[in-house]
Amino acid sequence: MTRLRVCYHLAVPPGDVAALAASVLLEQSVEVPHPVATRHAFVRDHLLGTLESLEPDPDGGFRMWLALPTATALADPAQFLNVLFGNVSLHPSARLLDFELPPPCFEMLPGPRFGLDGLRRLTGVARRPFTCAALKPVGLSAPELAVLCRQFAEGGIDLIKDDHYLADHPFAPFEARVRACLEAVGDVHARTGHRAVYVPNLSGTPDQVMRQAVVARQAGVQVAMVAPMLIGLPALRELTRHHPDLPVMAHPSFAGSTRIAPPALLGKLFRLFGADAVIFASYGGRFGNTRTESVAVATCLRQPWGPLRPALPVLGGGMRVERVPELIAAFGPDVALLVGGDLLEAGETLIERTRIFTEAVAVA
Amino acid sequence: MTRLRVCYHLAVPPGDVAALAASVLLEQSVEVPHPVATRHAFVRDHLLGTLESLEPDPDGGFRMWLALPTATALADPAQFLNVLFGNVSLHPSARLLDFELPPPCFEMLPGPRFGLDGLRRLTGVARRPFTCAALKPVGLSAPELAVLCRQFAEGGIDLIKDDHYLADHPFAPFEARVRACLEAVGDVHARTGHRAVYVPNLSGTPDQVMRQAVVARQAGVQVAMVAPMLIGLPALRELTRHHPDLPVMAHPSFAGSTRIAPPALLGKLFRLFGADAVIFASYGGRFGNTRTESVAVATCLRQPWGPLRPALPVLGGGMRVERVPELIAAFGPDVALLVGGDLLEAGETLIERTRIFTEAVAVA
Repeated sequence: MTRLRVCYHLAVPPGDVAALAASVLLEQSVEVPHPVATRHAFVRDHLLGTLESLEPDPDGGFRMWLALPTATALADPAQFLNVLFGNVSLHPSARLLDFELPPPCFEMLPGPRFGLDGLRRLTGVARRPFTCAALKPVGLSAPELAVLCRQFAEGGIDLIKDDHYLADHPFAPFEARVRACLEAVGDVHARTGHRAVYVPNLSGTPDQVMRQAVVARQAGVQVAMVAPMLIGLPALRELTRHHPDLPVMAHPSFAGSTRIAPPALLGKLFRLFGADAVIFASYGGRFGNTRTESVAVATCLRQPWGPLRPALPVLGGGMRVERVPELIAAFGPDVALLVGGDLLEAGETLIERTRIFTEAVAVA
Repeated sequence: MTRLRVCYHLAVPPGDVAALAASVLLEQSVEVPHPVATRHAFVRDHLLGTLESLEPDPDGGFRMWLALPTATALADPAQFLNVLFGNVSLHPSARLLDFELPPPCFEMLPGPRFGLDGLRRLTGVARRPFTCAALKPVGLSAPELAVLCRQFAEGGIDLIKDDHYLADHPFAPFEARVRACLEAVGDVHARTGHRAVYVPNLSGTPDQVMRQAVVARQAGVQVAMVAPMLIGLPALRELTRHHPDLPVMAHPSFAGSTRIAPPALLGKLFRLFGADAVIFASYGGRFGNTRTESVAVATCLRQPWGPLRPALPVLGGGMRVERVPELIAAFGPDVALLVGGDLLEAGETLIERTRIFTEAVAVA
């Protein structure tokens, strides 16, 4: 029988850890007292979990690996999350650190359809890091956003993404915004030969997201963005199934609200659920992440993992143009560098500032 | 202009709090440097937030109330979450404590369609607490689950809910399970006059959840359960819109993974997104919640709140029959008491043990 291996951190004193470990093991498998579970042969033989290891963590507390039944997890993508970190998330002392999957899981959750290589083919960015900029603030009209989009394209940006606050607002309706921004990148392409890819944000209930995806595809959008924790990870899975030819960039909004280690959530779960590119807050920005953790997220996105394609790490969260060489040294060339406010602050000289950014990446 | 008022806890030293407060204020409104935001008249006038108060928290750190623009939040239910706790969730020192909404928010998110009173009408449980039991463990076949369902119905349970691990598994397919359990409660009703309500769990991607809801309605299901954090809160909103005549019970799986205070998440957000009943781990059970926090969740679910109907608090997470009088004293009669493993442990005497439970509630 195949098992899902899951690693939790348990922040409890040594005297309490055995009881908590046993409790988590039941909670994440059958959620009944052990005598009740073992009453039924099928449950006893196929649906109980196993404690694989329980060791002190060098940084305090304990690290526990469980083997959990894939028979439960494979019912659907929500059940997969349920087995991974459902009720155990209600234990304030438990944190999801990591997980490892047997092959059947990849049939339900096949990961990126395009990933890093697909995005390189789509954009023509062969080996260097991608450059990425954000259309914001929310409140600009569709024509104003298109002006910004045109300037970024003229500055040589590869991926011009909507801010995650851009939705189907009355002051900048989704379809008008998408059409205006696509026209902007199209004009710059015709005039300069540089083909920027505009990445609109899809937002709303699952129906709204799917409708926006249809509108976007019909208008000619090649890559779309969603915030998987806002719309729900199963909705991301569904989007990738409904639109097999639309690469998806994932935004981390609401994702920090979890007690799941960022490499496990942004690096593994987002990739597993189909994100081709994943934006995350890098070290040295606004969010206080460590360099080790940032590099670990990028590593999880790109490393070999079963049949899954590597995904593109997108470094954001307050990156500045001056840090281009340092960031490339830290993360390597298989990344996108997302610079937001630092470009927008340039105001009248936005295009020049953007060129400094894209040229720094080109020569790095 | 109407504003969304949001309260965050900031766990930082006094010397750092002003900078973090200013940063969160921008992060949750326009996510660009202040000079960029104020360049645009519409943004400056309508989309910036305001710091309303910043005070030391008696338990350490600071409590900050912000007024944030509803113009952004009202685009769709995912944007609402984004404005409430999107990027700020990436600050490890920030936690969402509470929020208050202006009337326009209730048009997009009208809350429970049935709520406490609707569930009382539907079940005929007039004034006393509801009794609730769970069908588990996962791994039982549909006929085995139906046997359990029948026993709980014979024991007098009001609401017999699926365990949250029950999904559309090959060993207990959704439709077969639903039909068998409905037949079981129907038989007991015909024989004894006691009408238990069977509450199946809907799980999966949004499409799967909606399909299961259709199957359930056609089979005669009167109340369904979902885990909103597993399927995504916007999918819950959509379910309640697609099935206006199907009350929904919400399960907290994956909900503890957030850094959102349980009264704000389970008490306010779940209710706002349309849950008619909300299961949460009460104090004294398996999850170590405090009595104060548990009562606060119940209070948030039931208290007057704009045009929203009160929702039914469902106390779970390891409740035992012997605690019935104490729990009713603590929470009052407008609750459901969910007893799971404690009943199942009775084995051969399940019906008797269930009767002890339902009679204790009846006389309390």
